[in-house]
Amino acid sequence: MTEKVALIGSGNWGSAVAKIVGGNVQKFDHFQNEVKMWVYEEQIDGQNLTDIINAKHENVKYLPGIKLPENIVACPDLVKTCEDATMLVFVVPHQFVVNVCRQLKGKISPKCKAISLIKGVDVEENDNGFQLITDMIQDSLGIRACMLSGANIATEVAEERFCETTIGYRNKEDGELFKQIFNTSTFRVNIVEDVVGVELCGALKNIIAIGGGLVDGLKLGDNTKAAIIRIGLYEMRKFSKMFYADVKDETFFESCGVADLVTTCAGGRNRKVAEAHVTTGKSFDQLEKEMLGGQKLQGTSTAKDMYGILSKKGLLKEFPLMTTIYRICYEDLPPIRIVEDI
Amino acid sequence: MTEKVALIGSGNWGSAVAKIVGGNVQKFDHFQNEVKMWVYEEQIDGQNLTDIINAKHENVKYLPGIKLPENIVACPDLVKTCEDATMLVFVVPHQFVVNVCRQLKGKISPKCKAISLIKGVDVEENDNGFQLITDMIQDSLGIRACMLSGANIATEVAEERFCETTIGYRNKEDGELFKQIFNTSTFRVNIVEDVVGVELCGALKNIIAIGGGLVDGLKLGDNTKAAIIRIGLYEMRKFSKMFYADVKDETFFESCGVADLVTTCAGGRNRKVAEAHVTTGKSFDQLEKEMLGGQKLQGTSTAKDMYGILSKKGLLKEFPLMTTIYRICYEDLPPIRIVEDI
Repeated sequence: MTEKVALIGSGNWGSAVAKIVGGNVQKFDHFQNEVKMWVYEEQIDGQNLTDIINAKHENVKYLPGIKLPENIVACPDLVKTCEDATMLVFVVPHQFVVNVCRQLKGKISPKCKAISLIKGVDVEENDNGFQLITDMIQDSLGIRACMLSGANIATEVAEERFCETTIGYRNKEDGELFKQIFNTSTFRVNIVEDVVGVELCGALKNIIAIGGGLVDGLKLGDNTKAAIIRIGLYEMRKFSKMFYADVKDETFFESCGVADLVTTCAGGRNRKVAEAHVTTGKSFDQLEKEMLGGQKLQGTSTAKDMYGILSKKGLLKEFPLMTTIYRICYEDLPPIRIVEDI
Repeated sequence: MTEKVALIGSGNWGSAVAKIVGGNVQKFDHFQNEVKMWVYEEQIDGQNLTDIINAKHENVKYLPGIKLPENIVACPDLVKTCEDATMLVFVVPHQFVVNVCRQLKGKISPKCKAISLIKGVDVEENDNGFQLITDMIQDSLGIRACMLSGANIATEVAEERFCETTIGYRNKEDGELFKQIFNTSTFRVNIVEDVVGVELCGALKNIIAIGGGLVDGLKLGDNTKAAIIRIGLYEMRKFSKMFYADVKDETFFESCGVADLVTTCAGGRNRKVAEAHVTTGKSFDQLEKEMLGGQKLQGTSTAKDMYGILSKKGLLKEFPLMTTIYRICYEDLPPIRIVEDI
């Protein structure tokens, strides 16, 4: 059977991924050459962004300076992008997923498989208190969804600097098919039978990155920071296994686990703002406005979501690091408590 | 039964540990108050180092500025230090262990238990091609040995900055007893039933730190470095389990595993010299002389030892990262091959 890939999203990460996928589908006979990419239409100097991308083969707004393969075709219509596809790559901001799925419902092939590249979970009034993005896609569209997550900064990936990533699958054939469209010599894909583990790593690491930044601000040194990373990885694993018994330990040794956590605690906006919280004494809210130019701080909001869930279930004491990070962010606890309270 | 602790070694790490152990034995009734510490006698401004330590309660040469508890008693005679002890803490440089054990043979209580704080393995003509320090202690003295290793820089520990460490045990009572003399609120001990895993982490991480330094020198960015750390942790685990089937995955999630690896790849001399190898083009031998003031580079020599072992067993292809690091260090392979050959 011939597979046809569609990309849903064209931001910084979506465009970096388009470069890889566009190249890879040409290497195999069982993929159709054309890959449509849904672009939320906007005007750049009076021109449609889709027209610029299709003429210049470059996303001049979100990934300037990087050439996209010519078989990537920008399309402003979501349904037209996806209607003849068999493999959907979700790479839109977290808050758009519900609406995207609503528009696609009933319009896609029943043979479709999906993969989510979206980090984060949704707080919901279900048993767990939250919902995974892959579950939202599966439930609303009735198709199986994989998850891709790893230590991947879009620009570094687009510049072909070596890194790794992890694909979690439920059905091994799906995992191997998606591996074919993503794996390159500089973007190394490992597949694991654990969608949920991969997905929760991507969400929870941002909380721990706040901890890493606090330690940096307190100038406690490399050993303390390594301890926070280790305890963070432990709590991420414990949390995931407590809510989903099938999550595998092995997943946390993959790029989505230890590697992404290490990178996020070394760079990234969560770490940076937390460090500034210690050195300036300003609140996270204020620093978010001052330092991030409209971007949102995921670590604090995820910490709040998880705190709410753990609190409701009486589990706060079992997660001292996540709990303490929440309290430092939202209850004015002095930052030094990150090492005193855990 | 009353336990009596003796410290074999009084360097930078030995003295930091003396501060902790001297404090902890006073908290429990089942430890004798006095802790003898063997000091290799030397003269400081015409005075014996042991006399200075016992008068000032400070190791002015190896850990200046840190007060030791008064129950730590420096002793220049190895046998006298240990003859009435039931718990021996080995914290001498790697190359002195054989000689220390030879002197203690037949002179210690049969009730003795030991713990090694020594990182490194010895290349030997046995089946594996190397011998663990804990095995050398066990075999030569006929006593059980635990292992302590973690993300622990001596000075940071002595200054009571928060960190963690791991004790591997064979006999749980030993593990819990040693935990009592080491655990504090800022030096958090976890115990695991895995002496060998803890010990091999401490030896193998230095090879991976060379890789971390090469990536820094090449300016490949945080994602690439995180990938090298992840692959390094994977190869450390695979190597350990291949040579010792009882080694546990869980150990690599402990401080001795992921945390120590992260710290060693962030700071430390192996990382630093490897970075300079890339930026200056000088050999590791030359940089060792120029940069380390007489200290030895453990990462390169361990890489050589492990390469010899893997080569003899036909296993080089199964450990591409360790193999490539060896070749960059000893066979003039260009550093960029660290990401091309793995």
